[in-house]
Amino acid sequence: MSKLVIDMMGSDLGSAMSKEAVRLFHGAHPDCALVLVGKKAELADMNDYSLIEAEDVVSMEMGALEVLRKKDSSMVKAIEAVISEKADGIVSAGSTGAFLSASTLILKKIPGVIRPALVTSFPNLKTGGFTTALDVGASNANTPEEMAQFALMGAIYAQKVNHIARPRVALLSNGSEEGKGSPEGKKAYPFLREDKRINFVGNIEGSQLLNDGADVIVTDGYSGNVMLKSVEGAAKDLSGLLKKVFKRNLFSKIGYLLAKKGLKEMKDALDPKKTGGALLLGINGIVVKAHGNSTSEAFKNAMELAYRLSEERVVDALKVGFHA
Amino acid sequence: MSKLVIDMMGSDLGSAMSKEAVRLFHGAHPDCALVLVGKKAELADMNDYSLIEAEDVVSMEMGALEVLRKKDSSMVKAIEAVISEKADGIVSAGSTGAFLSASTLILKKIPGVIRPALVTSFPNLKTGGFTTALDVGASNANTPEEMAQFALMGAIYAQKVNHIARPRVALLSNGSEEGKGSPEGKKAYPFLREDKRINFVGNIEGSQLLNDGADVIVTDGYSGNVMLKSVEGAAKDLSGLLKKVFKRNLFSKIGYLLAKKGLKEMKDALDPKKTGGALLLGINGIVVKAHGNSTSEAFKNAMELAYRLSEERVVDALKVGFHA
Repeated sequence: MSKLVIDMMGSDLGSAMSKEAVRLFHGAHPDCALVLVGKKAELADMNDYSLIEAEDVVSMEMGALEVLRKKDSSMVKAIEAVISEKADGIVSAGSTGAFLSASTLILKKIPGVIRPALVTSFPNLKTGGFTTALDVGASNANTPEEMAQFALMGAIYAQKVNHIARPRVALLSNGSEEGKGSPEGKKAYPFLREDKRINFVGNIEGSQLLNDGADVIVTDGYSGNVMLKSVEGAAKDLSGLLKKVFKRNLFSKIGYLLAKKGLKEMKDALDPKKTGGALLLGINGIVVKAHGNSTSEAFKNAMELAYRLSEERVVDALKVGFHA
Repeated sequence: MSKLVIDMMGSDLGSAMSKEAVRLFHGAHPDCALVLVGKKAELADMNDYSLIEAEDVVSMEMGALEVLRKKDSSMVKAIEAVISEKADGIVSAGSTGAFLSASTLILKKIPGVIRPALVTSFPNLKTGGFTTALDVGASNANTPEEMAQFALMGAIYAQKVNHIARPRVALLSNGSEEGKGSPEGKKAYPFLREDKRINFVGNIEGSQLLNDGADVIVTDGYSGNVMLKSVEGAAKDLSGLLKKVFKRNLFSKIGYLLAKKGLKEMKDALDPKKTGGALLLGINGIVVKAHGNSTSEAFKNAMELAYRLSEERVVDALKVGFHA
């Protein structure tokens, strides 16, 4: 049975949002044990759940180093509860930098892992499935050895979570030919090519991200973050433009009504809320970061992601992968 | 009076495309002198223009080093003609790597410029204007000093070509706060902040690229290329998805017809063909690279871009900027 700890306080929208998300999730997965961490007064109506009190909240501006001094914060207490409560993982919508560093320091890396990676899933618009990219921002520079490890982590993730038997692993580059890439990426290439545990398919460009170019995209954290934000931004700005186009006059408004169902599906396919956020891979425990401005639906989806990782025993699979 | 040299042979679509583009451009700008370079047989019907014969063609696969041995190619002959014909610049749709390196070697860098930068313009969806980004792929790694120079080059470009009096210059990063960024980006930050010649507005994320976040975005060539391709790919894949949505059934097809005009404008705003391609800045001469698969309209727009740079005396302005 899975057990998850939830930081109830981290989001921009406050505990009303996270409480709603917990109720939604619990309705769907009554078998999953939940431990909620937050201010007692705000969680007074959640007595059906296991509660841990935390007086303090980590602010969104708080950096990686400050958070550890916030010992009474819901974030730190929640991470510690993963160990004390023997839980499988944690979900928080709090400050990314703070959450990633506190999780790494408290839960510690899986033996053999040099650096954990922040992982996100992009919609594969061709197949309706997902393409996994890592690192998308846990580090802002990575060595070739770290990128080689990201490849194995990503492949295990795609196998377990996306159920792809032999995931195609590609290296992000500025050209598809071998020999292209950042200086570190070029050095990572031979590591990936020689690794028999993964199905390496060569370099890939950002243009193939949504387009079934690969199942796993390996990148350093800085470039991965640039790719993530560029694509999310473009999708958002284009949706905004589309909305303006449809609002223009009576004809376009009728046009919108007639195509509404398809447009809604298109919007959903691109909605970061649906994928539920990013996760930190390479840690002794499931660490899922929901967006700071998550709606209850988005936060619930982040919990779903953590639940899936727990049910699929992804952390155990990574331990085996890095032990071998 | 402006004078441009045109490599007629480099494109995937052959000289029929470039001839059509030349005629279109000439119709719009009869004042601009043109020198066409290519195979005599294929240019037999272009005797109204000044012609230079070239027996050979640089293939799309040809790399940066091989091109210089192709002395009889239209690309090399065209670049040389910029000097011998005292022209203002050149337009080619040939292999990017070959074109950039041959242009740099033959035309040489402007004194004071450490490295030239590949520049491209993104549509600013908020204002209808453009945001200029550099480097987007001339290098695959850059020093902080090089990035500091890109800032000045980009600012001069935005002033001259986009007519922005005091362009906002931002540094691409993985977060908007100072202290975020790639290792080299962080070192470039103080250079940009201290440079009184530019209006530095701090870090910017890829999510603000189409969204009026800045007038000029400075980045190393690798990350800039990742950003460019990610955004272009997302725009293309989303347009494809939109098309599918509208083709779904009779109602959505009618919906499309009713919103058609607005959708066409949206498509045009995002069409790389409209901006006409990228250009190499920091060289003694205007160097415009049209897409390899340019239509005659796109190639004509690349010529328009070169023409605008020539009329605005951008190379002279850069020489003054780097001399001061």
